[in-house]
Amino acid sequence: MKHRLAMVGFGGMAGWHYDLIQRIDDLEVAGIWDIKEERRTYAEGKGIHVYKSEEDLMADPTVDIVLVATPNDVHKGVVIRAMEAGKNAVSEKPVTLCSADLAEMRAAAEKTGKFFTVHQNRRWDEDFLTVKNIMAEGKLGEIFRIESRVHGSRGIPGDWRQEKEHGGGMVLDWGVHLLDQALLLYPGVKLNTVYATLTNVTNQLVDDGFSADLGFENGVHVLVEVGTSNFVSLPRWYVLGADGTAVIQDFGRDGKMVCATGVNEGDVVPVITAAGLTKTMAPRREDTIRTEDLPWADSDIRDFYRNVMAVIEGKAESRIKLDEVARVMRLMEAIFESAEKKQVIKFEA
Amino acid sequence: MKHRLAMVGFGGMAGWHYDLIQRIDDLEVAGIWDIKEERRTYAEGKGIHVYKSEEDLMADPTVDIVLVATPNDVHKGVVIRAMEAGKNAVSEKPVTLCSADLAEMRAAAEKTGKFFTVHQNRRWDEDFLTVKNIMAEGKLGEIFRIESRVHGSRGIPGDWRQEKEHGGGMVLDWGVHLLDQALLLYPGVKLNTVYATLTNVTNQLVDDGFSADLGFENGVHVLVEVGTSNFVSLPRWYVLGADGTAVIQDFGRDGKMVCATGVNEGDVVPVITAAGLTKTMAPRREDTIRTEDLPWADSDIRDFYRNVMAVIEGKAESRIKLDEVARVMRLMEAIFESAEKKQVIKFEA
Repeated sequence: MKHRLAMVGFGGMAGWHYDLIQRIDDLEVAGIWDIKEERRTYAEGKGIHVYKSEEDLMADPTVDIVLVATPNDVHKGVVIRAMEAGKNAVSEKPVTLCSADLAEMRAAAEKTGKFFTVHQNRRWDEDFLTVKNIMAEGKLGEIFRIESRVHGSRGIPGDWRQEKEHGGGMVLDWGVHLLDQALLLYPGVKLNTVYATLTNVTNQLVDDGFSADLGFENGVHVLVEVGTSNFVSLPRWYVLGADGTAVIQDFGRDGKMVCATGVNEGDVVPVITAAGLTKTMAPRREDTIRTEDLPWADSDIRDFYRNVMAVIEGKAESRIKLDEVARVMRLMEAIFESAEKKQVIKFEA
Repeated sequence: MKHRLAMVGFGGMAGWHYDLIQRIDDLEVAGIWDIKEERRTYAEGKGIHVYKSEEDLMADPTVDIVLVATPNDVHKGVVIRAMEAGKNAVSEKPVTLCSADLAEMRAAAEKTGKFFTVHQNRRWDEDFLTVKNIMAEGKLGEIFRIESRVHGSRGIPGDWRQEKEHGGGMVLDWGVHLLDQALLLYPGVKLNTVYATLTNVTNQLVDDGFSADLGFENGVHVLVEVGTSNFVSLPRWYVLGADGTAVIQDFGRDGKMVCATGVNEGDVVPVITAAGLTKTMAPRREDTIRTEDLPWADSDIRDFYRNVMAVIEGKAESRIKLDEVARVMRLMEAIFESAEKKQVIKFEA
């Protein structure tokens, strides 16, 4: 069955969707609408059909999916109007600005019977899936701490992403991905505590970075961090188990696992520093550890839209559940609350 | 003026003191006492005078300084007895196990009029002093976050350091150094909030690592972390300023500063990942940043004992103030309290 998708909002991310959809069977772009004339002209130049208005787009009976790639504060209205027009809706992330808005969107989905999901594309990022592989393999022994970071040094983008009323800031932008991934590391495990701090280095209106400690009921702590004034990046992932550590440097395949071999070291040669000595922090003797390649995961982001189409055809469940989306939204709210009150938030404790 | 020092406790750290003192003018080791026969025999083998008992040591009228390098729970008693015997006392770190014990020790110093200090030797570590240089230089712009870590992978030492009643655990062992350093990064600035988590990976009786977020009144957050199941280490120091980042890899001189040049980048080439794209986290174009060498600091740990002797001679103030030591002790107590209650502790707010 062939599906036709129309895009509301045609900025940079919609362009990414457009290119992706060219590579997917049974899915085509019917056209776009953007309130900016410049973006409409750009789309026409690419030979893409441009609707006369959002209403014109919604009225196209050949369209069964509407992609909403507007600024964050606009998602809710477009998604609801799309479903009321009989379309299925895919919203860019973050789905909206708060849990109450999401509840309205879900109510509209219930009422109209249409399918509505969120483009949590970074569930398909291979670095994340590799961490899942590492956890499944068990070579690190019992995992007790996982750190997930993205670090850049350009501040935050200079458009609506700098404005609170449009849903700007890094918690909602990158945080929504990393927090979604973090919750998927331990499905079904309660997240007991949240402690977070925000930064305002290059921007005073919205957060331009944050650090969040997530304390799960199983005792594992997951640190999620986004920085935009980090001129040297710490690793994308840092996974600590009782018997070994995994590091993934960035979005690529640079990384390793270092595990204990079980060989006893005997006498330790201490590290002498300018003002002391330490055996505890001395490096390991070579034969007491082994370095292994990461169990790299391959992924195909086209599976996002393939799943959307299968759900519409009644052949599959959605890979991205709205309950999961709602939990991430509550977590982002807990992060803002923790940073504001300078307190630990009891999340699901 | 010549000074003679006697050591109570002659384990690994006392051996370090012994070697150090050989290189210091006007200071000599008069002898040692250790409750373990094996350590006394070892000292005799090195040609060091071994007293018949602690009382015998304290009664030596040629000794004016007693170094206390016993397990942590024994420091208090020996320090107080030394001062009551008319000696000046240098205690290994941590000075004792809790603030109440430290208050007793300070009261004994007041009563006897003797000088009492703590061997916070890592104030002389060159990586720490280099961070102070970085802060003084100002090339990173306004600093908003500093991360200080020591990571090893051997668990905690298998002696009394694994036992709570002897003052074991990493907060008291390495934490006391890193926390002392952290407070010295911003002298005179209140530490408003403390949030900490402990690990029990290789040891259930005492913490074998911790992570502590320190929120200062000036808005800067300092992260202090000790890990003993980290088979790959994160950098020793990570210093974030609005205009640049400094990294010091370990106790040696491996590290760099990367700063913005002020050159505008214009169009950003996004990073394409398996499942998305990002401009925000894209690397900088080469000409928009410059890499600089660290402003490395030299130090001479002999200055610790030179200062002790100068204080005894009435020629200097102590480099290590007991008020500072007491503040670090309260901070360690706040860390234990935060981890236990899973709450942010309002420290000096």
